[in-house]
Amino acid sequence: MANSFKIRTDLALEARESVEETQKEIRGVEIDENYDEKNEVKVTRVVIHTKNAARNLGKPMGTYITLEAPAMLEADEDYHREISETLARQLGMIIPNHDKEQSVLVVGLGNREVTADALGPNVVDNLFVTRHVILEYGKAAYNRTKMNLVSSIVPGVMAATGMETAEIVKGVVEQTKPDVVIVIDALAARSTKRMNRTVQITNTGIHPGSGVGNHRSALTKESLGVPVIAIGVPTVVDAATIVNDALEKASYSCEEPKVLTELNNMYVTSKDIDATIKRLSFMISEAINITLDGEFEE
Amino acid sequence: MANSFKIRTDLALEARESVEETQKEIRGVEIDENYDEKNEVKVTRVVIHTKNAARNLGKPMGTYITLEAPAMLEADEDYHREISETLARQLGMIIPNHDKEQSVLVVGLGNREVTADALGPNVVDNLFVTRHVILEYGKAAYNRTKMNLVSSIVPGVMAATGMETAEIVKGVVEQTKPDVVIVIDALAARSTKRMNRTVQITNTGIHPGSGVGNHRSALTKESLGVPVIAIGVPTVVDAATIVNDALEKASYSCEEPKVLTELNNMYVTSKDIDATIKRLSFMISEAINITLDGEFEE
Amino acid sequence: MANSFKIRTDLALEARESVEETQKEIRGVEIDENYDEKNEVKVTRVVIHTKNAARNLGKPMGTYITLEAPAMLEADEDYHREISETLARQLGMIIPNHDKEQSVLVVGLGNREVTADALGPNVVDNLFVTRHVILEYGKAAYNRTKMNLVSSIVPGVMAATGMETAEIVKGVVEQTKPDVVIVIDALAARSTKRMNRTVQITNTGIHPGSGVGNHRSALTKESLGVPVIAIGVPTVVDAATIVNDALEKASYSCEEPKVLTELNNMYVTSKDIDATIKRLSFMISEAINITLDGEFEE
Amino acid sequence: MANSFKIRTDLALEARESVEETQKEIRGVEIDENYDEKNEVKVTRVVIHTKNAARNLGKPMGTYITLEAPAMLEADEDYHREISETLARQLGMIIPNHDKEQSVLVVGLGNREVTADALGPNVVDNLFVTRHVILEYGKAAYNRTKMNLVSSIVPGVMAATGMETAEIVKGVVEQTKPDVVIVIDALAARSTKRMNRTVQITNTGIHPGSGVGNHRSALTKESLGVPVIAIGVPTVVDAATIVNDALEKASYSCEEPKVLTELNNMYVTSKDIDATIKRLSFMISEAINITLDGEFEE
Repeated sequence: MANSFKIRTDLALEARESVEETQKEIRGVEIDENYDEKNEVKVTRVVIHTKNAARNLGKPMGTYITLEAPAMLEADEDYHREISETLARQLGMIIPNHDKEQSVLVVGLGNREVTADALGPNVVDNLFVTRHVILEYGKAAYNRTKMNLVSSIVPGVMAATGMETAEIVKGVVEQTKPDVVIVIDALAARSTKRMNRTVQITNTGIHPGSGVGNHRSALTKESLGVPVIAIGVPTVVDAATIVNDALEKASYSCEEPKVLTELNNMYVTSKDIDATIKRLSFMISEAINITLDGEFEE
Repeated sequence: MANSFKIRTDLALEARESVEETQKEIRGVEIDENYDEKNEVKVTRVVIHTKNAARNLGKPMGTYITLEAPAMLEADEDYHREISETLARQLGMIIPNHDKEQSVLVVGLGNREVTADALGPNVVDNLFVTRHVILEYGKAAYNRTKMNLVSSIVPGVMAATGMETAEIVKGVVEQTKPDVVIVIDALAARSTKRMNRTVQITNTGIHPGSGVGNHRSALTKESLGVPVIAIGVPTVVDAATIVNDALEKASYSCEEPKVLTELNNMYVTSKDIDATIKRLSFMISEAINITLDGEFEE
Repeated sequence: MANSFKIRTDLALEARESVEETQKEIRGVEIDENYDEKNEVKVTRVVIHTKNAARNLGKPMGTYITLEAPAMLEADEDYHREISETLARQLGMIIPNHDKEQSVLVVGLGNREVTADALGPNVVDNLFVTRHVILEYGKAAYNRTKMNLVSSIVPGVMAATGMETAEIVKGVVEQTKPDVVIVIDALAARSTKRMNRTVQITNTGIHPGSGVGNHRSALTKESLGVPVIAIGVPTVVDAATIVNDALEKASYSCEEPKVLTELNNMYVTSKDIDATIKRLSFMISEAINITLDGEFEE
Repeated sequence: MANSFKIRTDLALEARESVEETQKEIRGVEIDENYDEKNEVKVTRVVIHTKNAARNLGKPMGTYITLEAPAMLEADEDYHREISETLARQLGMIIPNHDKEQSVLVVGLGNREVTADALGPNVVDNLFVTRHVILEYGKAAYNRTKMNLVSSIVPGVMAATGMETAEIVKGVVEQTKPDVVIVIDALAARSTKRMNRTVQITNTGIHPGSGVGNHRSALTKESLGVPVIAIGVPTVVDAATIVNDALEKASYSCEEPKVLTELNNMYVTSKDIDATIKRLSFMISEAINITLDGEFEE
């Protein structure tokens, strides 16, 4: 039976859809959809209120905001600026105490050497980092009286560092004491139709087994001691998932097919993934720059 | 019927296998298999002798040598040296006039920015290039009396250059007049079981539609005017092919399934593709360096 | 005597200044200076009219436009857009037949692996390349009736390719027949005060011995058969030149000092050269994109 | 007077030489020189025993081992293996408790984007990292009963992270509790004759103001709580230093010359720095791999 095959998706939206097929409404899950016609962006807000609902969806309790915009795939610079601004608005709403000055650490997860997994490192490359300047010269260096302290790190992957990402980030958090952590990661989706054109923002952080590179350790409020906002874009689909979905669509009632073991550790990605990652990274770093530059009432 | 779905593979070995399922022997195709037990390398030599056989297999007439070695996937440096030497021997046999001094241009196809497509550029990075030194200072600069002139180029992909790869390579060949061209490219296989552990060497060059990046234009003796040896490693499998194969294995008699159009322009690759590409590139550049350093009788 | 030490500069402006010290006006050299107060850009136009003047200045006959803007060093995005537009205007004036549709090949000289020499490759990375799309789908693909065909190449350095840059570019020009070639290169200046804040545009192309990487072969109208516009930014100063200048300033009358041989093949560069190169590359690629997007009267 | 100009060098050997000019022997400083004729490597051991001597030399108390080998500049792979082994022997002697199993964190300082400063990150890229595998699967995964746990990090530069390198490394050390830290950094030398052909190993760690990128914060036993071994290669010379030295050699008695302020934040580097850095990085990572693979008596 299809249900016995664990659906691999980092998107709460997809997790919910796969349950929805059988039951229309899920207790403990709240959903709002908004469509911005001008910018052709669909914003869906999924809130998982109860532990029970969390178990059903296989996602932790919390808020998941999803922006879907088919035009994200296109190389239109002006359009991407619009998306960055929409993203910045959503980000501003989910970051705790966003109306007050604070210290923010941005963490770029993933492997710089693997195109589809390089979203996090690339976002960090374009960030406007201020912490060191403010600590040394004060906000006057930027002609401001109120300003967020922004720092960033690319921890690298476990195969290269020999350390869990969580060990590195926890160490840096304890030394530099940010008020909030923003984590960027490339995600896996269930379906190719969301690949590279969807951004998910959540206040639940990063959980074991998510992401393109299967980062094992959690980056959450529990593990780090400060709120963790995660921003992700699905850049790959698990190869086994795609095959399974195809078999199901063919309405063939199957046991877990043999081919799947061959597909362990493989994923499906698009051929123009390099240009796509560059565009998406810039879009997200702009959104973070806008959000963290926040105007404060004096 | 399965045959109506065009099988997408750059490996002559796989093209032959897919025909073999129905007919045991194919007229006009000669096959030799050798297994080197010590190094656990299987060397298969497929020669397509007739136009008819070429049409049946969807591959041009010529010689295709395939080295399969499961251990290629492992990070064992000494073992890779063995494979480089086996590869060098095969390469030496297929390069015309290899026993004489000549001028060789090595072309690294593919996109340096896309991990799975960066094999060609990475191989070229490790080559021992000699042409400019010999032309300026003579072979005496290397304390040799006979020596090949080696040059190399990474033409880049059409989306970046606005030019066909063939236009660039043809221009360079006409200016620098090499005796033979060696082209390196990342390939697509039909099955994940050959991915990253198979090297194909052929004297038929590169044909439209092959490779990860779908290079459209031919690099062949006909187009360039000199013999073209192509070296390729399958680093991806077409996503649509994998789904199709799974559906067939499930013995579901299908028309071309709907899911396939969604999978256009997508491919399946492995998660550790970055480390794999580095190892494979080094293995191939070493093989070329050994081959082209060839000892000549004085 | 100081004059016997050959002054190493790729800037016509500096070549002229070093002569000017002794003689106020040089026969055969025309100079116009303009200062744009709003954008704080000084535009100097040096035209070398006669062979004699060319010999005196050690620069070929032709037009050299220099933009100097101290703020180029700063990370102000809006300001860089202004400079790009000023640059585009100057570029439009020096490109022959700029008011007509034509085919333009942009060549990024230099070594991508050496920060100070990576200007050319980086500029090419940000170009809007159109040739392949127009040849395949027509200008309609861009909703235009008139449009330039833009192509680009990064030939690589001789140590990596074994070929002269000129051989590669000549081959590509003969195959693809552009109407004009634009070459980008990192330059050497005589003084650190012009480093990274000066752009030189010239219609004389590239001459042996110029550039950070000492590209030996000429890229000129004579060698390529089409007009060659060169755009350069001094990103280094020759180490020997700096020492020599210091010795002269100390009014010490010296023979060529011993230290100079130690400094062969060394150059002076700034510590934040990576961020600087990124900014300058983007500024120049934007200028070229604006220029080549040129509105044509229908 | 020349002495008033602070000599900028990260090499204890050079610091000592500059004092030696006036006084032959320095109290509290012990020097041993050894020349390995076969490999043409000169090994100098400078031990600074007293605070007074430390003040005189401007270097902290401790041991400084310098390997000088002109052939390091050459692209001879076999020779580099010899140097790696010599280096590994010296490293084994200076790492505390090297005969016992321990946990080692290797830190690659510097800026991956600036060629001359990328030594540290490049060394880390080639390391054999084992900690995560041993913690998960035990030493049995490597068929060993005793084995060092190796981890590594590239913290990035302050301009990119907004954090002091020391904050990041301290956090990681506190989380992962290594027994010893090895830090790799590109250094500044006083003279170009030591550039790229000298390796310094010291047990004094990294001190403010050293390195190509002027890392401000200390990485020492005092700051991190565990022994810190630093490995460095001079890849640049401060531009102001070179000019000053030239002026002195010209026996011109000068006040601090004007030119020096222009040269602030500038350095001299060699033109083939990219190939040089690749070779040196590989040589050092091999030396660390050999050292940390250490055979332990059972």
